[in-house]
Amino acid sequence: MPASDLTDLSRCAIHTFTNKPWSLRQCIDGYTKAGVRGISVWRNVITPSEGGVAPDEAASRLRDAGMQVPALVRGGFFPAAEPAKRQAALDDNRKCIDEAATIGAEMVVLVVGAVPGMPLEDARQQVAEGIEAVLPHAEARGVKLAIEPLHPMYAADKSCINRMAEARQVCEQLQHPHLGIAVDVYHVWWDPDLKAEIELAGQQGTLFGFHVCDWRVNTRHLLTDRGLMGEGCIDIRTIRGWVEDAGFAGFNEVEVFSEEHWASDQTQYVDRIVRAYHECT
Amino acid sequence: MPASDLTDLSRCAIHTFTNKPWSLRQCIDGYTKAGVRGISVWRNVITPSEGGVAPDEAASRLRDAGMQVPALVRGGFFPAAEPAKRQAALDDNRKCIDEAATIGAEMVVLVVGAVPGMPLEDARQQVAEGIEAVLPHAEARGVKLAIEPLHPMYAADKSCINRMAEARQVCEQLQHPHLGIAVDVYHVWWDPDLKAEIELAGQQGTLFGFHVCDWRVNTRHLLTDRGLMGEGCIDIRTIRGWVEDAGFAGFNEVEVFSEEHWASDQTQYVDRIVRAYHECT
Repeated sequence: MPASDLTDLSRCAIHTFTNKPWSLRQCIDGYTKAGVRGISVWRNVITPSEGGVAPDEAASRLRDAGMQVPALVRGGFFPAAEPAKRQAALDDNRKCIDEAATIGAEMVVLVVGAVPGMPLEDARQQVAEGIEAVLPHAEARGVKLAIEPLHPMYAADKSCINRMAEARQVCEQLQHPHLGIAVDVYHVWWDPDLKAEIELAGQQGTLFGFHVCDWRVNTRHLLTDRGLMGEGCIDIRTIRGWVEDAGFAGFNEVEVFSEEHWASDQTQYVDRIVRAYHECT
Repeated sequence: MPASDLTDLSRCAIHTFTNKPWSLRQCIDGYTKAGVRGISVWRNVITPSEGGVAPDEAASRLRDAGMQVPALVRGGFFPAAEPAKRQAALDDNRKCIDEAATIGAEMVVLVVGAVPGMPLEDARQQVAEGIEAVLPHAEARGVKLAIEPLHPMYAADKSCINRMAEARQVCEQLQHPHLGIAVDVYHVWWDPDLKAEIELAGQQGTLFGFHVCDWRVNTRHLLTDRGLMGEGCIDIRTIRGWVEDAGFAGFNEVEVFSEEHWASDQTQYVDRIVRAYHECT
């Protein structure tokens, strides 16, 4: 069934990295003024060493502003050649889960990692082991973990999980109610199995998150040239229809990495995001 | 079984576009001096309006030099919104097949095409129809057609076929001895099903071509930043082993699009290609 119009912003969330030039406070203020009450928080804005505020302070600000926080982004990066690095990744993921609990985020999004030259099969095994190791902590803190399949162009060094099928296989292997998938249209729109995998994720109860943006034609940079919804070729509304038919009723999270949009006036940009959310999502 | 060392150049071919600054004559001379007798010809060097020689003249030069020509690159680009454009694509593919027959190329490599905004499923249907329409001509001219799955980062505008699985489905649908697949490690190295699909292609008799290069970490441009074998993260030798285990005994075709390498001395670059072929392929 095609998705119905998004007539209000009740299910709209914006990722703070979409407005990279802004602090957490500026994001909260800017989104609130635009009528957006959902915010997915990137770790940089709650990491003091990166210029962010402490998680406790972030928590009060988010609570005081009445924001809802679908996700803290991002944990993961489990595989490493050295055991010490794998252990460090587990520690950092537990810390990330703690931060998510502190700020009231529903889930941690996992960009699972990859190591150039390590066979992807081995990396995926290390990912499954890493997630298994931190799941008890996630459950104890009441935080869900969402594997985000990343586009195959990131397979070398960012994610050995590049399609929903591979994310599903980890979910099926670990069978844990706190483990699911975050579907980002940018990464998976091209996949012929997308509709079937979304249906399956709905049946398996693993459809945790839904991220929107667009694929620009032409894409000028592998990392920082995403389009705002409507600026590219992805049929976002059809995919949203599949996700909703599968039972998903969470936030439509706007996540756009774009040097072009970061260079623009961020207040006006949030207005454009809201318009694109209504018209092209 | 891991592939054995490539101790000679008997199965080495280079795509003329790898040495983009060179004319066909320069490629023939340069490859011959380096001991490489296989050459895959890009259409630009046999298209007079693009500064190339006429196919007849190319044919004599290749024949006189004793070159073997695994492929003419590239046909395809079948899908289009307008019927007239689809017809023009068929005409052009028949012309491309004629050129391949003229220069003695074993196959035409098909980059099948995609149209931004057209559902990939529809585009794939148009691709199957287009290939079906030109296959009789290919058979009549004794030229094989090889579908090249392109990396998903090209799904928007260059190829709606992004994995071996989708190429196989077209081959299974059309069931024609002149239709198969060209496997380029750059496009498919990340695919968890790669080994199984290569085995299946071997069984189905569709393993027509094998292209090598490497995936640079980081990749600076989506189109023109491929690495020479050994400059990236692809385990080329393992994939070559799979291809050979599946019965492939054709050329290992070196195809590298790289602004960096195009800017270098092309004669020295061919020497580096030969070294990379022996040491990293």
